[in-house]
Amino acid sequence: MSKLRVSSFAVSIDGYGAGPSQDLDNPLGVGGVALMEWLFPTRTWQHMHGNAGGEMGMDDDIAAQGLAGIGAWILGRNMFGPIRGPWPDESWRGWWGEEPPYHTPVFVLTHHSRPPLRMAGGTEFRFVTDGFQAALQQARDAAGERDIRLGGGVSTIRQYLRAGLIDELHLAVRPVVLGRGEALFAGLDLPALGYETARYVQGVRATHVFLRKRAP
Amino acid sequence: MSKLRVSSFAVSIDGYGAGPSQDLDNPLGVGGVALMEWLFPTRTWQHMHGNAGGEMGMDDDIAAQGLAGIGAWILGRNMFGPIRGPWPDESWRGWWGEEPPYHTPVFVLTHHSRPPLRMAGGTEFRFVTDGFQAALQQARDAAGERDIRLGGGVSTIRQYLRAGLIDELHLAVRPVVLGRGEALFAGLDLPALGYETARYVQGVRATHVFLRKRAP
Repeated sequence: MSKLRVSSFAVSIDGYGAGPSQDLDNPLGVGGVALMEWLFPTRTWQHMHGNAGGEMGMDDDIAAQGLAGIGAWILGRNMFGPIRGPWPDESWRGWWGEEPPYHTPVFVLTHHSRPPLRMAGGTEFRFVTDGFQAALQQARDAAGERDIRLGGGVSTIRQYLRAGLIDELHLAVRPVVLGRGEALFAGLDLPALGYETARYVQGVRATHVFLRKRAP
Repeated sequence: MSKLRVSSFAVSIDGYGAGPSQDLDNPLGVGGVALMEWLFPTRTWQHMHGNAGGEMGMDDDIAAQGLAGIGAWILGRNMFGPIRGPWPDESWRGWWGEEPPYHTPVFVLTHHSRPPLRMAGGTEFRFVTDGFQAALQQARDAAGERDIRLGGGVSTIRQYLRAGLIDELHLAVRPVVLGRGEALFAGLDLPALGYETARYVQGVRATHVFLRKRAP
């Protein structure tokens, strides 16, 4: 069966997956850009965003693996945009311009319905208002044999972890402290939820830890 | 001036510096031994405990650097032993046998006075009942030009961090999740307290992150 995977999700050593006060100017929260500094230089990231060049090596290999074999994405509302509450209109079309880097159906969790949004390059945003489990089922139907990637953010990942629904969780542990922000682990007992370290790899700018759910 | 340093202090990626339920059988708490599995194989650790052999390499180099130039240690009460409350007698002489691996004065924070305890090999345990700042002053007097190493545990390190008294904090981030235990970072805003990453090194079994206090 296809897996639900989190890949390339960065956390600080003090456990924050985003900085505080996310908004249009700080989509990763204040200071949160430090979490992504392992990914930005990679060839994979540069290529996703239409640029030539970029670094190869372990960090790049792992970023690329996170994109392989994905048939659908799930995103929390805040990953799609900074707007909270009802959609004022349909003018917000995501952070990524007219050709987002997904190239699959993307299921966006929201309390506010909106028609699907078909973008260039095969990305289609579909807005799911009946809960995170319904979103997973719809993503499974769309992905077929391929895996589903859960993009975040922190509260969305915590929701799926608490329900034990994530099969593989790749964290890119960055050697920085944020001090404030969105705490990924607070109050979550991952071993009790069935998660253990499957493997880890030392990258150049992050330590890559792969957690997997033990078979029940 | 001599520095107050924390060295080779291991934390899980979910931020625990010890497992839960520390006692005589589990001095690192249940599951806490996973935190130390980067240190046990090193030549430095093996040598400290009277054994030949052990691995060399980055983890070993860093363990050895943590011992160099130290003129005094500070330990929380629980690092010295499992006894809580008043000392029933003087029979508990630490976890380490008659020749502990410190070879300097060791200031033990406790609410219960006890005469100094002189051990083989130059270690002398001195029990400090007038607070963590008094212990630091006594350790400075004993260390002279050399540095003071704060051994732990978690609550003791948090006490000195909150007061901004630690100059260098080396964390060995282990790629494991504990889920429960003593949380090193909870509620501590390290950047606001003046700490930042000075450097980091990828070891074999841990990522070594060196935090330093910015000059005020």
